[in-house]
Amino acid sequence: MSQADRWRELAQQLRVDSIRCSTEAGSGHPTSSMSAADLMAVLLDGHLRYAVADPKNPAGDHLIFSKGHASPLLYSMFKAAGAISDADLLRFRTFGSPLEGHPTPVLPWVDVATGSLGQGLAIAVGVALAGKYLDKLPYRVWVLSGDSEMAEGAVWEAVEHAAYYQLGNLTCIVDVNRLGQRGETMVRWNTAAFAARAHAFGWRTVEIDGHEFDQIDAAYTEAGRATDVPVMILAKTHKGRGVSLVEDKNGWHGKALSKEQAAAAVAELGGERHLTIQVRPPQSADPVTLPPSGTLSLPAYRKGDAVSTRRAYGDALKAIGQAFPNVVVLDGEVNNSTYAETFAEAFPGRYFEMFIAEQQLVAAAVGLQVRGWVPFASTFAAFFTRAYDFIRMAAVSRANVKLCGSHAGVSIGQDGPSQMGLEDLAMMRAVSGSTVLYPSDPNQTAHLVAAALHRPGVVYLRTTREKTPVLYDPDETFEIGGSAVLRSSALDQATIVAAGITVHEALKAADALAADGIPTRVLDAYSVKPIDEGALHAAARDTGAVVVSEDHWPEGGLGEAVLAALAGFAPFPVVRTLGVRAMPGSGTPEELLDAAGIGAGHIAEAVRAAVAHKPAPARR
Amino acid sequence: MSQADRWRELAQQLRVDSIRCSTEAGSGHPTSSMSAADLMAVLLDGHLRYAVADPKNPAGDHLIFSKGHASPLLYSMFKAAGAISDADLLRFRTFGSPLEGHPTPVLPWVDVATGSLGQGLAIAVGVALAGKYLDKLPYRVWVLSGDSEMAEGAVWEAVEHAAYYQLGNLTCIVDVNRLGQRGETMVRWNTAAFAARAHAFGWRTVEIDGHEFDQIDAAYTEAGRATDVPVMILAKTHKGRGVSLVEDKNGWHGKALSKEQAAAAVAELGGERHLTIQVRPPQSADPVTLPPSGTLSLPAYRKGDAVSTRRAYGDALKAIGQAFPNVVVLDGEVNNSTYAETFAEAFPGRYFEMFIAEQQLVAAAVGLQVRGWVPFASTFAAFFTRAYDFIRMAAVSRANVKLCGSHAGVSIGQDGPSQMGLEDLAMMRAVSGSTVLYPSDPNQTAHLVAAALHRPGVVYLRTTREKTPVLYDPDETFEIGGSAVLRSSALDQATIVAAGITVHEALKAADALAADGIPTRVLDAYSVKPIDEGALHAAARDTGAVVVSEDHWPEGGLGEAVLAALAGFAPFPVVRTLGVRAMPGSGTPEELLDAAGIGAGHIAEAVRAAVAHKPAPARR
Repeated sequence: MSQADRWRELAQQLRVDSIRCSTEAGSGHPTSSMSAADLMAVLLDGHLRYAVADPKNPAGDHLIFSKGHASPLLYSMFKAAGAISDADLLRFRTFGSPLEGHPTPVLPWVDVATGSLGQGLAIAVGVALAGKYLDKLPYRVWVLSGDSEMAEGAVWEAVEHAAYYQLGNLTCIVDVNRLGQRGETMVRWNTAAFAARAHAFGWRTVEIDGHEFDQIDAAYTEAGRATDVPVMILAKTHKGRGVSLVEDKNGWHGKALSKEQAAAAVAELGGERHLTIQVRPPQSADPVTLPPSGTLSLPAYRKGDAVSTRRAYGDALKAIGQAFPNVVVLDGEVNNSTYAETFAEAFPGRYFEMFIAEQQLVAAAVGLQVRGWVPFASTFAAFFTRAYDFIRMAAVSRANVKLCGSHAGVSIGQDGPSQMGLEDLAMMRAVSGSTVLYPSDPNQTAHLVAAALHRPGVVYLRTTREKTPVLYDPDETFEIGGSAVLRSSALDQATIVAAGITVHEALKAADALAADGIPTRVLDAYSVKPIDEGALHAAARDTGAVVVSEDHWPEGGLGEAVLAALAGFAPFPVVRTLGVRAMPGSGTPEELLDAAGIGAGHIAEAVRAAVAHKPAPARR
Repeated sequence: MSQADRWRELAQQLRVDSIRCSTEAGSGHPTSSMSAADLMAVLLDGHLRYAVADPKNPAGDHLIFSKGHASPLLYSMFKAAGAISDADLLRFRTFGSPLEGHPTPVLPWVDVATGSLGQGLAIAVGVALAGKYLDKLPYRVWVLSGDSEMAEGAVWEAVEHAAYYQLGNLTCIVDVNRLGQRGETMVRWNTAAFAARAHAFGWRTVEIDGHEFDQIDAAYTEAGRATDVPVMILAKTHKGRGVSLVEDKNGWHGKALSKEQAAAAVAELGGERHLTIQVRPPQSADPVTLPPSGTLSLPAYRKGDAVSTRRAYGDALKAIGQAFPNVVVLDGEVNNSTYAETFAEAFPGRYFEMFIAEQQLVAAAVGLQVRGWVPFASTFAAFFTRAYDFIRMAAVSRANVKLCGSHAGVSIGQDGPSQMGLEDLAMMRAVSGSTVLYPSDPNQTAHLVAAALHRPGVVYLRTTREKTPVLYDPDETFEIGGSAVLRSSALDQATIVAAGITVHEALKAADALAADGIPTRVLDAYSVKPIDEGALHAAARDTGAVVVSEDHWPEGGLGEAVLAALAGFAPFPVVRTLGVRAMPGSGTPEELLDAAGIGAGHIAEAVRAAVAHKPAPARR
């Protein structure tokens, strides 16, 4: 069979299988798969370098299906490459099958989850950064993008960063089939418009007919030339290509064909085929060898000093960077605020500046961890809201990323609410499998940065702008899931649960209460998720009254985490939760903590009220 | 004084005042203000058409400071225009002053809050859409953008949409001062690169020296020409312009000058001035007159039918669109899934397709409400995570926007986790002043859409993909802050609290429990925020056991909202909360509800366990 014939046969097989599996499932996106079948046939059989039996081969190419709804096409490629069987394919979208509606790394050949559109290219930038600057391996990163998703701003962040970082190892194939879910895209078939945009950002561009094999092949060959410029291939295609019922027709997005329609479509495409393709193996390459890990020497701070937790974050990053050569750091153009600059200055080769593009910041972290690097990405806590979809999807990707949000809460002071992270605890707690840490002290921060390094999944660390007194000795240890008791006596009448900045307010409140004859426990709940349920139950049992104070909206943060932990404890203590209940303005940190009702005075007042509300015969 | 002399004097005054107010505050961004002072002097004195004494004048221009950290410049302009006094200016960033660190609509001359970079242009697109398509008034929308923030993808969403919608009434002035917070931008002073990008997206562009008054004046004149093409002015400037200590120097971002430095700087700039400028008044224009509101006739659904709440959303939108001519609708290229298409077909002139660009979707809504339109914006619940920073900032803007997220939870079935909104309740609850609604039935949905229309602020409505049985009669009413009891008896041993899809599971569970001799109350908590504390307290008092089930992660959603409401009630009931605790895959809705442990069987089991754990002498 000639190469062109084989491509044609393979492409038809991909179409037929896309129809078969989606019709069997009763749902899915066959027409979005069919438009790109010719593109993927030529990639799979001639250009992709990949070991199906060894998907973690460091030299293997990466293929990221940004248009994740074209999963029937991807899974059909897996079948054609011998990775899965026809029977596996036909379990598409059924309960328990790893062939989910949109691809996830439950399948070993999938690097990252896609399906939230406009994410693939930004994540690919991270993989390509690893290839060019860290792994220094010859693998290429290929992205299949839809045309509708080019409207997402994250795509253009990625386009700019790929050019800025000269990622010649990155190719974006855009399947310009003109039709979105509900009608035409803004650009329609104007591939020249896409090309002009990408070119203006510094890319090489190639416009082709995405159903002409020689043009596709030539474009991939051009993309494979070693340069420092990424390549975007704009391929004009027909949605539903090859089946007259659906080809280039609106109203067929995300719809499986009926069994009768499918039978006719398969016949029109020339019937079932079961070709297996031998994918070109990766170029042989030396494995990545890193120097052995060293001894970790965390920074230490002395009691009596005042040091911000954000500064301690930077110091600790540098320390773990010294000990662990697989640590990499990224920041969103605020590294002199988050103190990621401390790492950047020490290890410039392992630091990536992502500028003011928080989606790209998180996406690059997700891409870097695909290759085994452990990324720490930082910006203001408030601005991680910009990347929430990427953080959510990082969890679907089972990605190992560490995020640090600085400038949390009203305690930042004068800059005002746009800069205050007041929803980050809620946002980060509501990420599957996440860990949420909020240190109050620089020594604790250092230990938690080290703990984050070894904790899999999405780990979020919240830091504070202001300098605060050192509370702990450098050799105290802090486990994820733990807490620390800073004030306690056998006679405690209540417990204040605090974290971060409010720990310092809680201590002032406890001291004032103690002076008034109300001994009060102070619990530093630095591990917001998982929270120390044992210590909270002990506090409820021992003191019968719990006051929580947090520099965050009342919803979804520490207060509700404490309530969830106490819900199963009986007798349930008297509980009061303090949080920021009205929109703050500017002012000094002290003024704003007080105005929000979370300062020492309000905490003490809440403790008095809680103690007064305890049932008359003490529960203890 | 010649015009050029007046511009020069005014620009120097803006610089001097930017320094004075930030030095007085001890913080702020004088150098970011000084780079754009010449640009703003010419705009204020010659091009802007605005009534300082009548900021809501419908014909007045809109000026959106996307680089909100340049607030000293904006407030100095307000002083120069006679809006505020010099004494007001010097209260910048102090507690209680409306001159916050970043601008907010606490000041009547500010349309929207800025300070989270890269949002201004996208919001301006919404204002310009109103001007061109709804108000049909000759006002112009001017945006001052920083160059660093051009790295935000949201900017390029806005650039594309502005060209697509032919917003010739929109001008973006980019202050290309080359220096970000921590160093050079990616583009530096390459204004040609910015121009090529904007041009490729369909804009007219003008490159100028941003310190040459004649070039600035000519560019604004060019921008004022009536065309259908938006204009981007790329102005090369020097950060800190005019003061040798800081001009074009790195390391001076966001730093106030000391009193001594400020005194020298003011002297170098020629000393204090106190010019007052007569801003050109708006063009006289007929006021916007809408037809009078009609009688609202909500859709009605009959018991026995099964109708999805998303479909009812579309039907209700159409109904309120008929009755209220100020309702406008936007969607993110999924209007045949969210059913916003029902409105779009009925009122195409009040519908704006925002394509797959959720940041632009929310930003346009914020912009439309600046002009008094009431926008309803919809996409999948999962994809609102893409716009969380815009939603958070909408609250800082005190914006009146209604958001509807469809396809909530695992009950969507086969599409898998990327498409499942599982964090939206947490995200939306943690928005200041927000309202969060989650109907279970189409009649309830219709009433809540109408209630959302009249509820100020950010209102979020969560809808379900699947068809569910009609539970309520069309004439039942549903208040925000209320709840509905679907099963109840004098002997109830427990209460199930549910919302949306889990209401249907709760009813099955309650029926099974009743058959087993465990009468159980079912509370439909359709108003998640504010939640019906009274009904929850009554449930605790009457039944002593509360089981909450939600199609959402356990963090920050209905379960924690219920706990927060019950926290103040004694004796605290036995509480069990059910939510989605592990990453789902694909499957049927029934399989996934069951696998997540939130289906009828698990609810019944939790009720039995809770009843068994009630203290032996019944609390009732």
